[in-house]
Amino acid sequence: MGFPPALPPERTWFPLVELAVSEDIGAGDATTPLVVEAGHQGSAIIEARQPLVVCGLEVAFAVFREIDAQLQLRTLIRDGEQTVQGDLRGILAAERTALNFLMRMCGVASWTHRFVDAVEGTGVRIVDTRKTLPGWRSLDKYATGVGGATNHRVGLYDGILLKDNHVAIAGGVGLAVKAALAAAPANLRVCVEVESEAQAIEAVESGADYLLLDNRTPPEMRAIAEQLADRAQLEVSGGVHLGNVREIAETGVHRISIGALTHSAPSADVALEIENVVAKPGRVPA
Amino acid sequence: MGFPPALPPERTWFPLVELAVSEDIGAGDATTPLVVEAGHQGSAIIEARQPLVVCGLEVAFAVFREIDAQLQLRTLIRDGEQTVQGDLRGILAAERTALNFLMRMCGVASWTHRFVDAVEGTGVRIVDTRKTLPGWRSLDKYATGVGGATNHRVGLYDGILLKDNHVAIAGGVGLAVKAALAAAPANLRVCVEVESEAQAIEAVESGADYLLLDNRTPPEMRAIAEQLADRAQLEVSGGVHLGNVREIAETGVHRISIGALTHSAPSADVALEIENVVAKPGRVPA
Amino acid sequence: MGFPPALPPERTWFPLVELAVSEDIGAGDATTPLVVEAGHQGSAIIEARQPLVVCGLEVAFAVFREIDAQLQLRTLIRDGEQTVQGDLRGILAAERTALNFLMRMCGVASWTHRFVDAVEGTGVRIVDTRKTLPGWRSLDKYATGVGGATNHRVGLYDGILLKDNHVAIAGGVGLAVKAALAAAPANLRVCVEVESEAQAIEAVESGADYLLLDNRTPPEMRAIAEQLADRAQLEVSGGVHLGNVREIAETGVHRISIGALTHSAPSADVALEIENVVAKPGRVPA
Amino acid sequence: MGFPPALPPERTWFPLVELAVSEDIGAGDATTPLVVEAGHQGSAIIEARQPLVVCGLEVAFAVFREIDAQLQLRTLIRDGEQTVQGDLRGILAAERTALNFLMRMCGVASWTHRFVDAVEGTGVRIVDTRKTLPGWRSLDKYATGVGGATNHRVGLYDGILLKDNHVAIAGGVGLAVKAALAAAPANLRVCVEVESEAQAIEAVESGADYLLLDNRTPPEMRAIAEQLADRAQLEVSGGVHLGNVREIAETGVHRISIGALTHSAPSADVALEIENVVAKPGRVPA
Amino acid sequence: MGFPPALPPERTWFPLVELAVSEDIGAGDATTPLVVEAGHQGSAIIEARQPLVVCGLEVAFAVFREIDAQLQLRTLIRDGEQTVQGDLRGILAAERTALNFLMRMCGVASWTHRFVDAVEGTGVRIVDTRKTLPGWRSLDKYATGVGGATNHRVGLYDGILLKDNHVAIAGGVGLAVKAALAAAPANLRVCVEVESEAQAIEAVESGADYLLLDNRTPPEMRAIAEQLADRAQLEVSGGVHLGNVREIAETGVHRISIGALTHSAPSADVALEIENVVAKPGRVPA
Amino acid sequence: MGFPPALPPERTWFPLVELAVSEDIGAGDATTPLVVEAGHQGSAIIEARQPLVVCGLEVAFAVFREIDAQLQLRTLIRDGEQTVQGDLRGILAAERTALNFLMRMCGVASWTHRFVDAVEGTGVRIVDTRKTLPGWRSLDKYATGVGGATNHRVGLYDGILLKDNHVAIAGGVGLAVKAALAAAPANLRVCVEVESEAQAIEAVESGADYLLLDNRTPPEMRAIAEQLADRAQLEVSGGVHLGNVREIAETGVHRISIGALTHSAPSADVALEIENVVAKPGRVPA
Repeated sequence: MGFPPALPPERTWFPLVELAVSEDIGAGDATTPLVVEAGHQGSAIIEARQPLVVCGLEVAFAVFREIDAQLQLRTLIRDGEQTVQGDLRGILAAERTALNFLMRMCGVASWTHRFVDAVEGTGVRIVDTRKTLPGWRSLDKYATGVGGATNHRVGLYDGILLKDNHVAIAGGVGLAVKAALAAAPANLRVCVEVESEAQAIEAVESGADYLLLDNRTPPEMRAIAEQLADRAQLEVSGGVHLGNVREIAETGVHRISIGALTHSAPSADVALEIENVVAKPGRVPA
Repeated sequence: MGFPPALPPERTWFPLVELAVSEDIGAGDATTPLVVEAGHQGSAIIEARQPLVVCGLEVAFAVFREIDAQLQLRTLIRDGEQTVQGDLRGILAAERTALNFLMRMCGVASWTHRFVDAVEGTGVRIVDTRKTLPGWRSLDKYATGVGGATNHRVGLYDGILLKDNHVAIAGGVGLAVKAALAAAPANLRVCVEVESEAQAIEAVESGADYLLLDNRTPPEMRAIAEQLADRAQLEVSGGVHLGNVREIAETGVHRISIGALTHSAPSADVALEIENVVAKPGRVPA
Repeated sequence: MGFPPALPPERTWFPLVELAVSEDIGAGDATTPLVVEAGHQGSAIIEARQPLVVCGLEVAFAVFREIDAQLQLRTLIRDGEQTVQGDLRGILAAERTALNFLMRMCGVASWTHRFVDAVEGTGVRIVDTRKTLPGWRSLDKYATGVGGATNHRVGLYDGILLKDNHVAIAGGVGLAVKAALAAAPANLRVCVEVESEAQAIEAVESGADYLLLDNRTPPEMRAIAEQLADRAQLEVSGGVHLGNVREIAETGVHRISIGALTHSAPSADVALEIENVVAKPGRVPA
Repeated sequence: MGFPPALPPERTWFPLVELAVSEDIGAGDATTPLVVEAGHQGSAIIEARQPLVVCGLEVAFAVFREIDAQLQLRTLIRDGEQTVQGDLRGILAAERTALNFLMRMCGVASWTHRFVDAVEGTGVRIVDTRKTLPGWRSLDKYATGVGGATNHRVGLYDGILLKDNHVAIAGGVGLAVKAALAAAPANLRVCVEVESEAQAIEAVESGADYLLLDNRTPPEMRAIAEQLADRAQLEVSGGVHLGNVREIAETGVHRISIGALTHSAPSADVALEIENVVAKPGRVPA
Repeated sequence: MGFPPALPPERTWFPLVELAVSEDIGAGDATTPLVVEAGHQGSAIIEARQPLVVCGLEVAFAVFREIDAQLQLRTLIRDGEQTVQGDLRGILAAERTALNFLMRMCGVASWTHRFVDAVEGTGVRIVDTRKTLPGWRSLDKYATGVGGATNHRVGLYDGILLKDNHVAIAGGVGLAVKAALAAAPANLRVCVEVESEAQAIEAVESGADYLLLDNRTPPEMRAIAEQLADRAQLEVSGGVHLGNVREIAETGVHRISIGALTHSAPSADVALEIENVVAKPGRVPA
Repeated sequence: MGFPPALPPERTWFPLVELAVSEDIGAGDATTPLVVEAGHQGSAIIEARQPLVVCGLEVAFAVFREIDAQLQLRTLIRDGEQTVQGDLRGILAAERTALNFLMRMCGVASWTHRFVDAVEGTGVRIVDTRKTLPGWRSLDKYATGVGGATNHRVGLYDGILLKDNHVAIAGGVGLAVKAALAAAPANLRVCVEVESEAQAIEAVESGADYLLLDNRTPPEMRAIAEQLADRAQLEVSGGVHLGNVREIAETGVHRISIGALTHSAPSADVALEIENVVAKPGRVPA
């Protein structure tokens, strides 16, 4: 169903790599230079210790390069093995931070994939939300994409979503939709959150072609879908979990958005195994 | 047992607030200005929707201020209620990002507190690790502190920890400890990871006064503690969970470090309830 | 037709203010401290020397504050007079940079307003493009909005526009539209550039609801509008000037986008008049 | 008359490139990855669509590299053709921003060149001012240099210019000049603005060797030049246009400074033509 | 002889304050929060422990404010006493960094003043050089100014100085001066380094009006001064110390530039005395 | 005694290189491009003009690369000669800033080495302090390490040092030590400043194993060392100079910390000699 998700521009996530490296290395690794000589070579393999959807290797590699630009980073496509080779001081300094990225990114992608799998064949799309970790928006959204979800707006700036408070201030669903359509920039759709069948109909009749049904029961979803699914895009959200996502997907709505994709993804178990660690006889500082 | 943890210096976490605000607001909120007039006042309350250890209000407040410096932020001590008052455009723009911070920070503090509670009375300290979210080191460590844990080194730079790879390269526990003691700066303790009672004894006899026992069974911990607890600080780690933490605490070791405090903390359920949302009759844009 | 355009978030344009102040002040004003004593007070009025649409005062004020946070900035609403009061060293240092901003911003707003005026009553919207000055995207788009135009996408990231190259690579208008609809995020409309009536029809039948007709003649525009104006939004661009914009607006299309709004806006004539400039007798440095 | 102008240090203009790329790309190109596969190669030629003085290719190339460091950039000296080759995703993402820089920089250089041409043979120098676009000081000044003008001070920090307000505060032209000469750093000339022949003479007799005559008529300029041209450098400004610049140049003054070089330069017509755009059959995402 | 030196714009030195605070505080003061409660108030006095020229209080105050914006900073003009009042945690955290700035800045100003004193009455100016501490250019030059010296160019960008290598490449003093005069921007003087009386005369006859005589003996200086002091500014440098500066000043040259003002200034002895330090009984953490 | 000190991570000192280059180059070298053609090649040698401990070449090289990434930098190990080769414009622009770094870094390393030499054979370590130049912490500490000293804490964040004010607030040495031990993170030692033998004993009995004796006489040091040297680490400070450092070292203490290593290190005499400077006949601008 299309090309794989494009890694977001480095400028959106590299500041996070810099923060992460800086917060861990600070004034320098206090331990390794005491016992490992500069130039002592080694290699390491990144290992998944559970089945997972791989995500974030480019980011992990950026961590290694940020700490030691000379490290050799290689992906052996055939068996998915990732190797890092070079000065052991650099590898040991980068290890924890690189793994911390992979634990999160593989975690979100793998968790998302379970929801996508659960609705397979229904034609329904799993969609992410803005409940991402602060600072992690572009990586979290990339990881949900790798897991098979469709992205929703990245932030407040690239999508119009009239929520309950907007509707209340505007004086009703119809007024809110009309006000938005009158002034919205050409590039953005106008989505509106509705809380009942009546509101849904009012929204569509006011010109909305994208509805968000929040916290409705499957029968309510089904009733609205039967009436409106060919006149507007229908997205549902609220209280979705692996146990009910398939039932919801079968109500006839088009999209299911799930905050838990990002706010509750379990961390993946990923490790770095260093090979060929040998003492250099006679080289331990006298 | 001392003063409450000091909030880390703003410079260590404000870049994360800036990233978070920037990634969410970008070129500006596309929705609210379509239906909410500039200057439309409102107020909101931050609500915990589950019992939790409160953590991160200063950071959430920094988000609000970053988006609209005029917002009034108030903590009503008596009942723990947090209110935000001011221009609704600002409140609505800040809502999601502020909550995303609180969900994480209250989550980590509350989760940590469960481990601390579980060992109450044993005198053992729960200690955090470097398995934090990239970019979040200072906030994650602050949150474990708020939850009652003792911090371990912040990063590679402020603590010496000789791990298995260091020991292997140095040619053994004793050689590693001696090399480190010979060159370590005065301010840092020299900690060493050991994998057996024999190694533990070798470490102490080489001058180490802080041992990390990784992946030992409780009986092994107990045996080492009986021999060495008065000659060195003993920390254990590996495979700790709520079900076995008390048993471990009763073996006589001094500290238990747990990566899951930060890599697997469940997100807390926190929300923002906006009050007094009324349409301004006649003010919806014509 | 709605609220006035919201000033973009400061973070989108303040870096430009910082660059501008830094490039002009550098290591400090080499002239003024030679002849004007620290603390010598004065005031100044910002004057329009031609009829214009005012735009950018907040940005000009940010320049003054950046150079001297103590300056008093005041807008006298009644007659549009802007005054700046405080230490003359600061006023003189900020003058040129503040005016440089106003010359551009009033220039773009005023120039845009002439196109908006020219189509008044037709219901057609004047739309801006990405042909803005590098570094000035958010301010240029704000200024076209103040001039009465509707904004188009801010950048590549917040709008989907399939242009001729995309269509060629995809293998045709229909294939391009379908590929985009299959994978586009929910928040963005899918717009496609077409070069003939046949392509326009193919696009709509493939599901597009927003067409960009580039470099068509008014009769061609009219023919397409008659067929498709109620099935899709129609935008035209290319070769638009004050002499033909009304004729184009009367063809039945919905929007006219004009790169010249930003790439060819004449600079506005704005000046700063300093009042009460008097020598302090006896205080000129001896 | 000397070496070509040196491109300013990258640190003075690269922040503008970063702003420009960031404001256009944001979270990533929303269109191209939907229809163009990663790795799809292509090439493009930068074309001038009007006669112009070429200026800014290094900056345009920096834009391409910032977006995709792998792009091949080549200048074919023989015929002035510029080509860009590589991943089409990168070329399409960089196109608009690179052109926006060239439109401005070629525009300023070409416009400046018309003034320089107009005074050819008189020995008079055309000089720029600080009426540049905010954020663009170093590039605007570079472009006037490429167009044949001589630069004036870059900012307030690297030149002393006593203007009317300084003179008024100091208590007269003579007092202002003397105060400045007494304290000026050794590296900077002391220039003073004068408004009459009497003031000009007073200035020179007080030690000034550089005068700026603002808003004088050609006869006034001539009178002053006859008296003082061998005792001081004479610069004129105010109301200069292509129609009168030669007449002014023939009055005997040494320099003519013109704000319009930068505040009113017409945008140059530059485009990017992409070659070899072909669909990859069977590769459009299914 | 004029107004006191203007403190350079904050943007030129605040990055150094930020670096300094960041390098000292890092993740937070590890000591004070263990024994001093948040909110424990105190006050401190900045003391000079030797006679000195005061310089840098604004910078020291910026350090205190950067660490704790609530601290009260006060200068008691009458007796020069500086006090800092507020939360002791902030005062103790800022102490060392604030003093480190004062030690350097008072040191440079005081050291410079000794040279200025030594030439008093001769009319000769003491001038600084670019031999400043990296990162400290604007503060070092400010301090020499406070000490009574005249500044030379701030950097390579705001002054033209043709040194021996330039002269060699240009093919001689005369050619170098002419090439420079032909293309120099209007605002900058053209200075040239000469190594003999013959070169000095060649320079002046080629149009130079500012000469730098490097490493000449007093008799050589005197000979050149007698010939050229009324046709050009004469500056000398090289091997100047407190023991010979007066002799040099009496040779008739106009300026003496001295690298040692900044590269060899002794550190001043400045301390911070904390007052009213009392334990809060019963408040030490239990 | 171990490996040579590791150069601190670039991120800790590169901002200083950037500040230094920026403050010197600004908008560009105003002199060299007037007389030296772009592309004119040359080479230069860095020369020590006094015996010194070499320190900081990597930093000086970073300056050259920052200004011109094409410069060839080479260290000829055999005779310690450093050469720089490439475009003369770049070499001349970088010269002063690179030397300014070397003057400081070689200066601190050489000065430190004199103290280390003076105590040779006593087993005592010379230790640095936080009296470094603001912005220079990591380079100053690296230079003391190169000179043979042992580093103390880098900043407030990575070491616990209870000083006189902390002790007073806590209510005594014993209370301060106990409060700190109760809450200190595991990685840091707890050091305490004592002012008498009685305090020293109280500190050790309260659990401290690291004492700082400030401003004690050698006999007092000896008395304390005799009692406590095998129960705690003993560091002395205050009034140490080359004339008394050996006497102090022979009292039996373990470490001597000396602020003068960094606050009073004399600048080293280092220069750059440019070779092969020849005029290109006929290439001087006409």
